[in-house]
Amino acid sequence: MPSDSFFHPVSGFDLPRFAGVPTFMRLPHVTPDHAQFAKVDIGLVGVPWDSGTTNRPGPRHGPRQLRDASTMIRAQHATNGMRPFETANCADLGDVGPNPADIQDSMARITAFYQTLKANNIRPLTAGGDHLTSLPVLRALATQPLGMIHFDSHTDLFHSYFGGTMYTHGTPFRRAVEENLLDPKRVIQIGIRGTMYDSEDRDFAEAVGIRIVTIEEFFARGIKDVMAEAREIVGDQDTYVSYDIDFVDPTFAPGTGTPEVGGPNSFQALQVCRELYGVNIVGADLVEVSPPFDASGATAFLGVSIMFEMLCAMLA
Amino acid sequence: MPSDSFFHPVSGFDLPRFAGVPTFMRLPHVTPDHAQFAKVDIGLVGVPWDSGTTNRPGPRHGPRQLRDASTMIRAQHATNGMRPFETANCADLGDVGPNPADIQDSMARITAFYQTLKANNIRPLTAGGDHLTSLPVLRALATQPLGMIHFDSHTDLFHSYFGGTMYTHGTPFRRAVEENLLDPKRVIQIGIRGTMYDSEDRDFAEAVGIRIVTIEEFFARGIKDVMAEAREIVGDQDTYVSYDIDFVDPTFAPGTGTPEVGGPNSFQALQVCRELYGVNIVGADLVEVSPPFDASGATAFLGVSIMFEMLCAMLA
Amino acid sequence: MPSDSFFHPVSGFDLPRFAGVPTFMRLPHVTPDHAQFAKVDIGLVGVPWDSGTTNRPGPRHGPRQLRDASTMIRAQHATNGMRPFETANCADLGDVGPNPADIQDSMARITAFYQTLKANNIRPLTAGGDHLTSLPVLRALATQPLGMIHFDSHTDLFHSYFGGTMYTHGTPFRRAVEENLLDPKRVIQIGIRGTMYDSEDRDFAEAVGIRIVTIEEFFARGIKDVMAEAREIVGDQDTYVSYDIDFVDPTFAPGTGTPEVGGPNSFQALQVCRELYGVNIVGADLVEVSPPFDASGATAFLGVSIMFEMLCAMLA
Amino acid sequence: MPSDSFFHPVSGFDLPRFAGVPTFMRLPHVTPDHAQFAKVDIGLVGVPWDSGTTNRPGPRHGPRQLRDASTMIRAQHATNGMRPFETANCADLGDVGPNPADIQDSMARITAFYQTLKANNIRPLTAGGDHLTSLPVLRALATQPLGMIHFDSHTDLFHSYFGGTMYTHGTPFRRAVEENLLDPKRVIQIGIRGTMYDSEDRDFAEAVGIRIVTIEEFFARGIKDVMAEAREIVGDQDTYVSYDIDFVDPTFAPGTGTPEVGGPNSFQALQVCRELYGVNIVGADLVEVSPPFDASGATAFLGVSIMFEMLCAMLA
Amino acid sequence: MPSDSFFHPVSGFDLPRFAGVPTFMRLPHVTPDHAQFAKVDIGLVGVPWDSGTTNRPGPRHGPRQLRDASTMIRAQHATNGMRPFETANCADLGDVGPNPADIQDSMARITAFYQTLKANNIRPLTAGGDHLTSLPVLRALATQPLGMIHFDSHTDLFHSYFGGTMYTHGTPFRRAVEENLLDPKRVIQIGIRGTMYDSEDRDFAEAVGIRIVTIEEFFARGIKDVMAEAREIVGDQDTYVSYDIDFVDPTFAPGTGTPEVGGPNSFQALQVCRELYGVNIVGADLVEVSPPFDASGATAFLGVSIMFEMLCAMLA
Amino acid sequence: MPSDSFFHPVSGFDLPRFAGVPTFMRLPHVTPDHAQFAKVDIGLVGVPWDSGTTNRPGPRHGPRQLRDASTMIRAQHATNGMRPFETANCADLGDVGPNPADIQDSMARITAFYQTLKANNIRPLTAGGDHLTSLPVLRALATQPLGMIHFDSHTDLFHSYFGGTMYTHGTPFRRAVEENLLDPKRVIQIGIRGTMYDSEDRDFAEAVGIRIVTIEEFFARGIKDVMAEAREIVGDQDTYVSYDIDFVDPTFAPGTGTPEVGGPNSFQALQVCRELYGVNIVGADLVEVSPPFDASGATAFLGVSIMFEMLCAMLA
Repeated sequence: MPSDSFFHPVSGFDLPRFAGVPTFMRLPHVTPDHAQFAKVDIGLVGVPWDSGTTNRPGPRHGPRQLRDASTMIRAQHATNGMRPFETANCADLGDVGPNPADIQDSMARITAFYQTLKANNIRPLTAGGDHLTSLPVLRALATQPLGMIHFDSHTDLFHSYFGGTMYTHGTPFRRAVEENLLDPKRVIQIGIRGTMYDSEDRDFAEAVGIRIVTIEEFFARGIKDVMAEAREIVGDQDTYVSYDIDFVDPTFAPGTGTPEVGGPNSFQALQVCRELYGVNIVGADLVEVSPPFDASGATAFLGVSIMFEMLCAMLA
Repeated sequence: MPSDSFFHPVSGFDLPRFAGVPTFMRLPHVTPDHAQFAKVDIGLVGVPWDSGTTNRPGPRHGPRQLRDASTMIRAQHATNGMRPFETANCADLGDVGPNPADIQDSMARITAFYQTLKANNIRPLTAGGDHLTSLPVLRALATQPLGMIHFDSHTDLFHSYFGGTMYTHGTPFRRAVEENLLDPKRVIQIGIRGTMYDSEDRDFAEAVGIRIVTIEEFFARGIKDVMAEAREIVGDQDTYVSYDIDFVDPTFAPGTGTPEVGGPNSFQALQVCRELYGVNIVGADLVEVSPPFDASGATAFLGVSIMFEMLCAMLA
Repeated sequence: MPSDSFFHPVSGFDLPRFAGVPTFMRLPHVTPDHAQFAKVDIGLVGVPWDSGTTNRPGPRHGPRQLRDASTMIRAQHATNGMRPFETANCADLGDVGPNPADIQDSMARITAFYQTLKANNIRPLTAGGDHLTSLPVLRALATQPLGMIHFDSHTDLFHSYFGGTMYTHGTPFRRAVEENLLDPKRVIQIGIRGTMYDSEDRDFAEAVGIRIVTIEEFFARGIKDVMAEAREIVGDQDTYVSYDIDFVDPTFAPGTGTPEVGGPNSFQALQVCRELYGVNIVGADLVEVSPPFDASGATAFLGVSIMFEMLCAMLA
Repeated sequence: MPSDSFFHPVSGFDLPRFAGVPTFMRLPHVTPDHAQFAKVDIGLVGVPWDSGTTNRPGPRHGPRQLRDASTMIRAQHATNGMRPFETANCADLGDVGPNPADIQDSMARITAFYQTLKANNIRPLTAGGDHLTSLPVLRALATQPLGMIHFDSHTDLFHSYFGGTMYTHGTPFRRAVEENLLDPKRVIQIGIRGTMYDSEDRDFAEAVGIRIVTIEEFFARGIKDVMAEAREIVGDQDTYVSYDIDFVDPTFAPGTGTPEVGGPNSFQALQVCRELYGVNIVGADLVEVSPPFDASGATAFLGVSIMFEMLCAMLA
Repeated sequence: MPSDSFFHPVSGFDLPRFAGVPTFMRLPHVTPDHAQFAKVDIGLVGVPWDSGTTNRPGPRHGPRQLRDASTMIRAQHATNGMRPFETANCADLGDVGPNPADIQDSMARITAFYQTLKANNIRPLTAGGDHLTSLPVLRALATQPLGMIHFDSHTDLFHSYFGGTMYTHGTPFRRAVEENLLDPKRVIQIGIRGTMYDSEDRDFAEAVGIRIVTIEEFFARGIKDVMAEAREIVGDQDTYVSYDIDFVDPTFAPGTGTPEVGGPNSFQALQVCRELYGVNIVGADLVEVSPPFDASGATAFLGVSIMFEMLCAMLA
Repeated sequence: MPSDSFFHPVSGFDLPRFAGVPTFMRLPHVTPDHAQFAKVDIGLVGVPWDSGTTNRPGPRHGPRQLRDASTMIRAQHATNGMRPFETANCADLGDVGPNPADIQDSMARITAFYQTLKANNIRPLTAGGDHLTSLPVLRALATQPLGMIHFDSHTDLFHSYFGGTMYTHGTPFRRAVEENLLDPKRVIQIGIRGTMYDSEDRDFAEAVGIRIVTIEEFFARGIKDVMAEAREIVGDQDTYVSYDIDFVDPTFAPGTGTPEVGGPNSFQALQVCRELYGVNIVGADLVEVSPPFDASGATAFLGVSIMFEMLCAMLA
C-alpha cells in the first residue's frame, strides 16, 4: 500500500541536506499527540540514555547526532531499488525523555512509551541509547517470548556488575531471558569477540540454548551462511533485531564506549541487514552510538545507514 | 503581554537538554504553513548558506549546529531576570532553503521568505549563513533606509572581488548603501581590525558617513562609552543589528571563516548586546558561524548565547 | 616540618615529564594498605564518577586525565617560592572505586573512603567526578557544619530534577545544607552566571543566608575585594573549598559538561586560589573536568594547575 | 628518455620530509611563465574550487593539503620499481585561480589554463576541487570525445538540482556527454553505491550506453576482472581517468563531502590504479578531497598515494 | 605453574576500567627496587623515546597512552581461552628514563635496563618508543645472534640518513646485523610496502639473507601460509618479535609517524600474532605508536590489543 | 625606498587565500641560489627543528603550518597603515634543512645558513623550531654581544638537563651568555611564569644582570610601561627579539610543547610587538609553534600575526 504523502521525507534536490530542522531521515516529526500519529506504521524513536554504561559514557547524545547524520539518507535503496518511505508511513516520533539520574524511572518511562506504540500498531525502529535500552523496549513488545538476532561484539548476558548491580548495558539479555521476554532457543548473537572477564556469560548462553557466533566463525563461514542459520533459528515467529554499533570494527565505528578491534567493515555491516529480509521483525534497535567519541560523525552516519537497511528489512 | 503557552520552550528540568528534536532554544517549530504562524512575534530563522564566502567555507552548516547548541539555553536572563519566552511569542520558523550553486537565486529566496515575515509583523532573529545573508534580509525589511549597529572585525564594505564580482560576504553593506537599504549616517561598525588589503573600504565609509570603531578604540574607551555612541547614532528610528561572530576573538569563536586575532572575549561579546536595550530593533542576525572549523561546538554555543542576548534586547 | 623524602615527586630534570606511570604530580602512589599511608598529610584522591550528571557526561574520566596532565607540574610555586612537597607529606591515594550504575552505592563508597582519611588525619584534595562528588565527601568531613568557598558558574542548590530526583550534580549543596554539613551563613558562591531555569536556587540561597557573587559583581569589584569578603565570611573555622572547573570561561576550560560563557580567564582562575591563603581548609575539590569534551587536554592542565594552587593554599 | 635533473624531487634523505615549501611530491614549482615550462611532460595542477558542491563544502582547500601530504611520497614504486620522476619531466604547475563566488567565471578560467597545457603538450594530473572541476578540464582536453574510467560512489550524471541548476558536482558528466566531450559508449563508472534520490541518473546512463559497475558487482567479481572490462571498454584511444576520493570507503577517506559507506579499502584504492597500465591516459584527476572534514590528514595522504599511482599509470 | 595472586590485574567488575592509576593491563607496578621484582616472569616495559625519528615525532608519548588504553584489556583470550596473567607473573616494570636530547646516552640507559631484566630472567614485552628502541634492547638480549619476526611497512635496514647519520629509526636492523645481534638468515620482515627512496635497503636484505614479504605477497598467500614460513625461518632457537604499528593500515592505526596506506586491517593485525604460537620468543616489542597523531586513542587501543596477543604467544 | 614589485605578495583579491603554493605571507620563494637573493632586505626563514625539546615534540612541523596560515595575512597594518612589503624587499628564503637525529650537525647547518644571510645584509625573521634554534642563529648574527627582548613563559637559562646535557630548548640563553653572544645587562625576559623546578635559572639571571619581568608584574604595570623599560634596557644598539609562542596563554596558543596557563591574551600578544618600534632589531624569531598540538591551526595563525607585527617593527 503506498504511503501517505504526508510521510514522505524532504528531498535533497529541493532542500539541501544541510538545511532544515533535523528529524530522522527528514521524516515528519509526529509525537503521540499529533493528529497523524495513528497512521504511523514504522516509528523511528530516540532513546537518549546511557545510565547503564559501565565504561565510557555518551550514548545519551546518540539520537541527536544520528538525526543530524540521517539527513544524508536519500529515498531509494541502491541495491534492490526499494523506496521504503513510499511503502509505509514512517515518522520520527521524537525522543523518550529519560531520567539520567534514575535507572528504574527511566526504564519505566521507556516501557510506557513503547506500550503506546504497540497499542497503536506502530513498529519501532529505535536509536539508542546504550544497550540497556533494549530491555525496557522488550518489556513493552514481548507479549510472548520473542526471537532475537543480535549483532554485537559482546553477549550482554552477564549476571551483574560491581558486586550485584543487575541493570547495566552488560546485562539486558540475561534479564530478558529471566523475564521471559526472549526465547533463548530463538536467539542468535553474531560477532562476539574481544578479551573476556571470564566465561560466565558464555556458560549461561550455552545453558539456555542461545547460539553464539564468534567473529572467527563469522569471517570463516561468510555472511550468507551465518545469516541463513540466523533466519532458521528465529523462524517465522515474532523476532526482535538488536544491533550494537560495536559489532562493527571500531575503525569504522569509533564512536562507542566499549570497542573491540578486529570486527566487520562497513560493507559487511550493511550486508548482514540485507540478509534479514523475510524475518518477521516486530522491532529493531541500533544502540551504543556515542558522539563524544565520534568527533567526525562517521559512526553516526554508518549508524543511520544501518538503520535505513533495517527499515528496508522491516518492510521487505 | 504574556506569551501564549504554546510558544514556551521545553524545560531541561522536564526533558534533559540532550534529548529531543533540536529547534532553536527548544521553541516550537512553526513554518509559514503552520496554524500558529500568524501569532508569532519573534521568528528565529536559519539561513544555511555560504555562497558569498571568499575564504574558508562552512556557514551553510551554521543553523543546524546553532540549533543543537541552543538546547543549552534556559528560560531566564541571569543578570536582569528577563524571561523573553514569556514576553512574546517566539518560534523557530525553520530554514530558508538556499540554492548552494546559485547566488542570485538564493538571494531571491531569502528576500521572499523575509517579506512573508514582514507581512505578518514577525520580527526576525536570523542565524546565518555567511555575511552576504544580511543583504537579501535587508531588502525585505528596509521599506526605508535603516540604521545599523554592526559588530565585526571587517567592514564588509568592499566594492568587489576577483575582478568585479559584486556579491560576496565582503560586500553586503556596500550594496546595501548603494541600494538605499541603509542610511550610512546611522550606521556604526564596531570591532574592526586585522590586516587590510588596502583602505578602499574605509575610504568609502568615511565618504558616506559610516562610523568605524576600531578594536583599539573599543578597548580604550570601554563598552559602555562606545555603545552609548552607537545608540546615539542610530537614534530611535528603525535599526538593524548585525553580529558577525568574527567580532569575537577567534580563541573564543574559532568556528568562522575569516578570523582576526586580538578581539573581545566572551564576556565582552555578551556585554555589547546588553547595551542595545532601548534601540528600536526591527531585525537582527548572527552570522559566519562555521561548524567545520568549530570541532568542539564552542562557537555555536557562544553564538546562541549572543542570540539569546539579542532576543532579550529586541524585547526590552 | 620538612617532608619525608619518600614523598618527593620525581623531577623532570631526572625523568622527562612524558615518562613514567602517571600519578598526581608525580607523587608516590600510597593506597590505604601501603606502609607509608599513616604518614600522609595531604592526600590527592580521584573520584571517577559522573552518575549525577544531568547534561553531558564524562567526569568519570577526569582523574586519569588530570593525573596525566599533572606530570607537567613542577616543584616550586613561581610567585611565592613555596615548595609544597617539601612542606608536607603529599601522596596520590588512588581512586575511590565508584559503582557507575548505582548512585547510592557510589555515595556510600566515597563517604567510607573519606572517613578513613579523616580517621588518619589526612586532608583530602579531590579530583572529581561531577559536582555530586562533594556531597559524600562532606558527609565524611563535616563533624560539624563547615564553611565553604565555592567557585562555580552554577549554585548547585536546586531542590530536585526530572520530577523529584534528589541527587544530581545540581543539588549537592541543597542536600548538604539540609543535612547540616554546611553552615549556610559561612558559605559563599562566586562566579554565578548563565541562563537560568528560574530563581528557585537563588531564593533558597537568600532564605538560608548563602552569599552569591555573580560574575558581574566579580568582575566589577575585582578578585582581591571579593576574596577578602570570602575570607571574612568563612572566618577562621573549618572550611571546605569546592572548585567547579566551569567557574572558568569555557574557552579556557572547554572540557566540562555544562559550560557557561563569559567567565574568568586562566590567570584569574589561579589568582582566586592565591587569595585563599589563611583560610582554614579541611579539604578541597576540583570537579567537573570532562575529558571527552577536552580533546586537547587543556582543561586538565588548567585543572591541575588549580589543584597545585589549592594545595599551596592548604599548606600556607 | 631520462628526465632532466631539474625536475627531480628533493629526497627525504637530504631534506627531512617535514621541511621545505611544499609542492606536489617535492617537484619544482613551474608556472606558465617559468623558463622550464615548455619542457614539462606531466603537470600536477591544483584546482582549489568547490562552488559546485551541493552538500558539505571544503574541496577548495584540497590542493594545499594534498601538497603538504605529498612530501611523504618518495621516488620509487614499491611493487614494480618504476621511478616516474626519472622517466618524464614532472612539475608542480601551481593552482588555477578560481573565482569562488562565480561558477561560470571559474569554469572559464580553468578551461583556459588547461588549454595552455594542451598547447604545450603537457598532460595534466589534477588535484581538485569538487567534481565539477572535471567539466572545464574536459572542455580543454577533448578535441574529440574521450573515453573515461571513472571511480566514484556516485554517477554525477544528474540533469539538474534545486529546480534547474545545471552546474553542480552532481552533473558534470551529464553535461560532458551533452557537450560531446565524452563518448558514453567508452565510459565506465566503478564503485557506485549509496542511497539514491531516484534512478534518473542510471536511466540516463543506460540510455546513452555508459557502463555502471556497482560496488556489489565490484566486490563480487574482483579488481582484476572489472578492470579488464574497463580497459576493453576504453580501448586504445584517448581516455580520461577521473577518481573521486569518495570511491573509497569513508573510513579510509573521511575528508570528503558526500561520503557513502561500504566502499573499497585503501589497498583496493591503489590496486585499481595498477590495472590502468596500458590505457592511453590523456589526463587524470583526483577530486573531492575536503580538508575541513579530514582532521588527521589521512584522506590527503591516501589521495596523493593515489595520485602517485595514477602518475605511474600515465607513464607506464 | 599458576601465577602469584599478587600479579593478578584488577578486574573491571570490581573497579571500573576508567578508574585507578593506569599501569599496563592493570598489572602491579614493580620497579627493579620492588620486593617482588625477582618473581617477575614477563615484564611490560615502556620506552618513551623518539630521538631516532626522521619524520613526524611523538612515540615518546606512546607508553603512557598505551597504559591508559590497556585498562580496557580483560583477563581471558576470547579465541583460545588463555588466561595469561594466571599462567605467569606479569608486571608493569615502569619506563626506562631516556635522555630526549642525547641519542647515545639514551641507548646506553635502555641497554642497561634490559640487562637487568635479562639478569633476572625476566622476558620483556616492550612498548616503544620509535623503532630505534629495538637496537639497544637487542644489545641487552642477544648473547648470541637472534632470529627475528618483524612486522612493518618498512625494512628499517638503511645504512644512514642525512649524509651519514647512523642511528635513526630507519637503521636499527642494519646496525643489529652489523653488530651480530641478529642472524640475518633467521630474520623475516612482513608487510613491506610504500613508496621507496631507492632499493638500497632491499639490496642489503638480499645480500645478507633477510627474507622480505611484501604486502602484495602477504595478501596473496594469506596469513597462515606466510606465518608458517616465518616459523620455519626462525626455527626453535631464540627469537625476537618486533611489531611496528605501521605494519597495520594507517586507517586502523593512524597514530604513527611514517604511515603507508594499503596495509592489513585490525583483524589481520591480531591474527598474525596468533600464528606466533610455538616460536621461542625471548622478547617482543610494539613500537612507533605516536599519540599526537592519534587523537581518538584508537591506535593505542589496537596497540595494546596486539601486546595482549604477543603476551599470550610468549606464554603459549 | 619602495620595494621592488618582484617582492610584492599575491593579493587575496586576485588569488583566493586558500589557493597557491604557500610561502610565508605569499612572498616569492627566493633561495640563496636565486637571481633575486642579493636584493632581499628581510628574509623569512623556517627552521623546522625540535631536537632540543625535552617535553612534547612538534616544532619541526612549525614552519610549514605557519606558511599555510600566513596566506591569511594581507598587505597593510590596520592600526598604523604600514605596508611593509612596499617598504622593503621581503622574501621567503625557504627552510634550513636540519638533521633531526644530530643536534650538533643541525646547529652547524643553521649557523652556516644565517652567516650567508648576514654576509648579504639580509635581516632574518625566523619561524622555528624549538627555542634551541635561537642559539645557532645568534652565533651567526652576534659579531658583538647583542641586546635581547625576550617574550616567554620560561627563562631558558638553565645550565643543563638529565645529568649534564647542555643543549636543549631550556638552555639556549645560558649558552648564549656564556658564549658572549648576548650582553646580559641588555637582556630583558618578559612574561615568566609557571611552576618551577627550582630557582637556579633565576639566580643565574640575577647574577649576570638579566632583567626578568614576571607575568604578575607584566599585568600589574601594563604593556606600555613594561615595554618602555625594555626599550631603555636594550638602548639603540643591535638587539635581537625572541618570541616564544608560549609567552601567550595556551588557550590562545595551544600548539606548543610546554604551555603555562595564566598568560597574555591575543590582543596583548600583538600589542607588545607594537611597542618594539624604535628598537634596532637585527633579527627576530617566533619559536615553539607545535602543529601536532594545534589541531585547529589557531596557534599558527596567531604566530604569523605576531610575525607580521615583528616585521613591521623591523621596518618602522
